[in-house]
Amino acid sequence: MAKFQINILGCGSATPTARHQPSCQVVDFRDKLFMIDCGEGAQGQFRRMGLKFSRLNHIFISHLHGDHLFGLPGLLSTMALHEVTGSVTVHVFREGARLMKEWMDFFNRNAPFEIIYDVIEEGERRVVYEDAGLVIETFPLYHRTPCNGYIFREKPKLRHLRGDAVKFHAVPVSMMKSIKEGADFIKPDGTVIPNTMLTTDADPSMSYAYCSDTMMDMRVAADVKGVDTIYHEATYDDSLESQARERGHSTARQAGRIAREAGAKRLIIGHFSKRYNSEEILLKEASEEFPDVIVANEGLRIDLE
Amino acid sequence: MAKFQINILGCGSATPTARHQPSCQVVDFRDKLFMIDCGEGAQGQFRRMGLKFSRLNHIFISHLHGDHLFGLPGLLSTMALHEVTGSVTVHVFREGARLMKEWMDFFNRNAPFEIIYDVIEEGERRVVYEDAGLVIETFPLYHRTPCNGYIFREKPKLRHLRGDAVKFHAVPVSMMKSIKEGADFIKPDGTVIPNTMLTTDADPSMSYAYCSDTMMDMRVAADVKGVDTIYHEATYDDSLESQARERGHSTARQAGRIAREAGAKRLIIGHFSKRYNSEEILLKEASEEFPDVIVANEGLRIDLE
Repeated sequence: MAKFQINILGCGSATPTARHQPSCQVVDFRDKLFMIDCGEGAQGQFRRMGLKFSRLNHIFISHLHGDHLFGLPGLLSTMALHEVTGSVTVHVFREGARLMKEWMDFFNRNAPFEIIYDVIEEGERRVVYEDAGLVIETFPLYHRTPCNGYIFREKPKLRHLRGDAVKFHAVPVSMMKSIKEGADFIKPDGTVIPNTMLTTDADPSMSYAYCSDTMMDMRVAADVKGVDTIYHEATYDDSLESQARERGHSTARQAGRIAREAGAKRLIIGHFSKRYNSEEILLKEASEEFPDVIVANEGLRIDLE
Repeated sequence: MAKFQINILGCGSATPTARHQPSCQVVDFRDKLFMIDCGEGAQGQFRRMGLKFSRLNHIFISHLHGDHLFGLPGLLSTMALHEVTGSVTVHVFREGARLMKEWMDFFNRNAPFEIIYDVIEEGERRVVYEDAGLVIETFPLYHRTPCNGYIFREKPKLRHLRGDAVKFHAVPVSMMKSIKEGADFIKPDGTVIPNTMLTTDADPSMSYAYCSDTMMDMRVAADVKGVDTIYHEATYDDSLESQARERGHSTARQAGRIAREAGAKRLIIGHFSKRYNSEEILLKEASEEFPDVIVANEGLRIDLE
């Protein structure tokens, strides 16, 4: 299987603690790295996890709270010292782009790469990145300040050729690609060999949604409907449900409900309040709503499969 | 002895490594905390060392390189979450004040304390803080961008009363303070009792100078002349002396020379290049120039005495 891996660099909330770093994830899609949020200390976590600066060209910021972006100046400065070239695109709300640009124009003016700011508008739903194998979309979350999530969708993969059948029907090499893409094979004599006789199904395409920070909102479930693996914030346990709503956050149980409603296969919970010395209660409450829950932790790598 | 303690929060250079954090120190003077430089991750180190946000009201930034101030936004935001009140004064060059204010006006607009910016001018020598027991001065260093150091000077302390003599001469309580300050005692009959008969010497007043980042420059030795304990950057070993000068840094040996020239009692070296897996060579080379060298390390506390 081609690599599609979620790296958890930080899954705490608000302030770094002895247990957790502020928000940061890196999606490794076939060795291209995509960072989502960049709390203070992200660059250190990035290196501790053995990730390569030269493979990081896109950074997606969900919203303009410090614990989701105060690691950016340091990360970009260190990338400059590592002689990263080309460009790094920061996808961020307008005011965040302005503030980052102010700092980077001063502190990082000699960087050997260009910093491009892709301005996300509040409430926007659109494709923010696309290449041959991957599409990344943004969509609104519901926090106490504008906040957007991101969905990573692997594009449909090629079907597998059946070697014996391909040989038997003497399919020329020049046709292989279109047959892997699903075309039938028309023989020189006009006979049509249906694609299903020549191929077996492609591997399934995976998808991943990042939902932090947000209160529970069924519009989120609708936006991430059908995504395989969902990361959803789970700042609090049941006993703090009203505080969660006040502060624009979710409980672990609510994260479980969103995953169920969205028809996900797997849920990753994170953005834990610093009050918890163990996430056991959060895992328990989320698991009462949804069967397959992973508790995020710094250094954790999750393969989508 | 009243507390006068240097806390090393970070003593690396340029980028955080597995061994060292970027520059940050906290001077604890009789339980008031003064931070010097604030590299990324400073807030985490601050808490790991058990320091109290409520006691921190002054932060001194030496220069506008990211590894000396990218921890500020996170630190100030966390202080806001800890409900620190009153004011925090950031002593920093003009452009740094402008950039910090831009960010804090946005990211920290609800902080329960005021952030005051005390603008240091390039090359300036002046008192930047004073209270009943302490004076802090700034003075120029010689880096590849404007850079200033800071000297902490304990004010002269009160002399110790000799209990027996005070009793014998029936010194009234109302006179005690002036006698501790050095006054003679004039008895009701006009007899003068010289202060030296009533007191013994005060404890010595300590001083501390922070010199990072800078190339070796004898003007620094002149500015810190007579200071007891000097922190001087020691980025490189002898073999990289020309690189040190090119980049506006010092070797460990040069740090030793400055300490000797200044007549210091003790030298702390830090700001180590990430190339060193051990600071042994730096200690060796500095020690060949100056007898009492301490190698900085994260978590180290040094009592001035």
